[in-house]
Amino acid sequence: MKVLKTHKTFGGLTRFWEHESTSTKTKMNFSTFTPPGELRGCLIWLSGLTCTDENFITKAGAQRVLAEKGLMVICPDTSPRGTQLPGEHDSWDFGSGAGFYVNATTPGYRDHYRMYDYVSQEIYAIVQKDFGIDHTMISISGHSMGGHGALILGLREPEKFRTVSAFSPIVNPTACPWGEKAFTGYLGAESRASWSEWDACELVRAGRFHPREILIDQGTDDNFLEKQLLTDNLVRACEGTKQKLKVRFQEGYDHSYYFISTFIADHL
Amino acid sequence: MKVLKTHKTFGGLTRFWEHESTSTKTKMNFSTFTPPGELRGCLIWLSGLTCTDENFITKAGAQRVLAEKGLMVICPDTSPRGTQLPGEHDSWDFGSGAGFYVNATTPGYRDHYRMYDYVSQEIYAIVQKDFGIDHTMISISGHSMGGHGALILGLREPEKFRTVSAFSPIVNPTACPWGEKAFTGYLGAESRASWSEWDACELVRAGRFHPREILIDQGTDDNFLEKQLLTDNLVRACEGTKQKLKVRFQEGYDHSYYFISTFIADHL
Repeated sequence: MKVLKTHKTFGGLTRFWEHESTSTKTKMNFSTFTPPGELRGCLIWLSGLTCTDENFITKAGAQRVLAEKGLMVICPDTSPRGTQLPGEHDSWDFGSGAGFYVNATTPGYRDHYRMYDYVSQEIYAIVQKDFGIDHTMISISGHSMGGHGALILGLREPEKFRTVSAFSPIVNPTACPWGEKAFTGYLGAESRASWSEWDACELVRAGRFHPREILIDQGTDDNFLEKQLLTDNLVRACEGTKQKLKVRFQEGYDHSYYFISTFIADHL
Repeated sequence: MKVLKTHKTFGGLTRFWEHESTSTKTKMNFSTFTPPGELRGCLIWLSGLTCTDENFITKAGAQRVLAEKGLMVICPDTSPRGTQLPGEHDSWDFGSGAGFYVNATTPGYRDHYRMYDYVSQEIYAIVQKDFGIDHTMISISGHSMGGHGALILGLREPEKFRTVSAFSPIVNPTACPWGEKAFTGYLGAESRASWSEWDACELVRAGRFHPREILIDQGTDDNFLEKQLLTDNLVRACEGTKQKLKVRFQEGYDHSYYFISTFIADHL
């Protein structure tokens, strides 16, 4: 693990890292903020389509709150980089910058696009081994595609994460255009039955749940709400199940980091 | 004045604007944040080399504090855009993105690069007319080249600005490579005697002062401190004059917006 850049921030350190990933068989980048003083816990933050390890750490204004609470954050990049797979760089909502936090099974992609394992195993291990965080003090959150990632990680492996939350998550990727395109490319149209393993609504319907209430913040002026995010589908899926869910529809807010910066303190 | 984008933020509005400038004879962009509720005052923020109207409003984390205090901020772009002057787009520290907040006198540049007038007259008037701010409630601050801009505006027209502050300012442009290059291009090598009108150290030496103490935050790990920013020159220039100055050398901080985000609340 190599530090690329360090910036002192609120008495702590914002850092950008590079390492060789065994999951993706590529170099991977992530950013961290570590607070001054005692380190009490860690948030794993998963970013959305087109994002990198930079967006959250630059725009969310989280460092102030993390420093106060003695928490760190780790923000992985959203896909492998530097590979040349068929169609990988042709569109902003598939391939590079759009890993969707699944383990791909299609030719080519299955060799590198294993973002689920990358986060749930490698990033999760780095937090413990390299930063000394106890496994009971690791939470997960994310935005949009990264909100989807946080939800499926929290539902599939609830014992690993203290809390699960999301901003503007894609809650039902098997039923929206972004998810259809990504899952077709990463999992294959012929394997459609298996897609439900990577869909928060389907996981809840199959009886998976996280023991704590999941917090979701969703802007009402979000252009993607109606066709891509489908927040209400998760509300309905959770009804009558063991999964407690608190969705806060925030009046007038959109899909941007201005929205995230406004409410991030509640997620920390 | 046309709104290009609006994002609800901390109950207020982050907006991006475009208008026709009479000073630069070009379209100009600026961003604003206006808080919810009563509007009590305005900070004019001037950004540094290579920046646009986006950097501060995206990265400084100021909206939270502005919303609490009932203050707005207005962030002009750092130069005219869309012109094709000799050498304008050849380097990052001169021409586009690097207006240096002077009124240029050299051929070509004098027709458009009038950033001093643009800020001190046009932006200053917009704040009053379009946002209803009283002229006694307008302050100015900035970063690096924009810190230089804030200092010379505050020293040349102290009656206009309630407070003057800066992060990592270029305090003595006539004595550093960035300033030499910019002033040669905008003012001409043959007019070197006139350069002092646009240099904070020289203005203080000539007896100019702002009635309030000027606050400067300067990181000790700032790569540009020694050769470009020359903070100590302003400390020495102010000694024995009417200009009160508080420089806080912040241990371990660099030239980035991570630094600005850490201390911006003290400037508001």
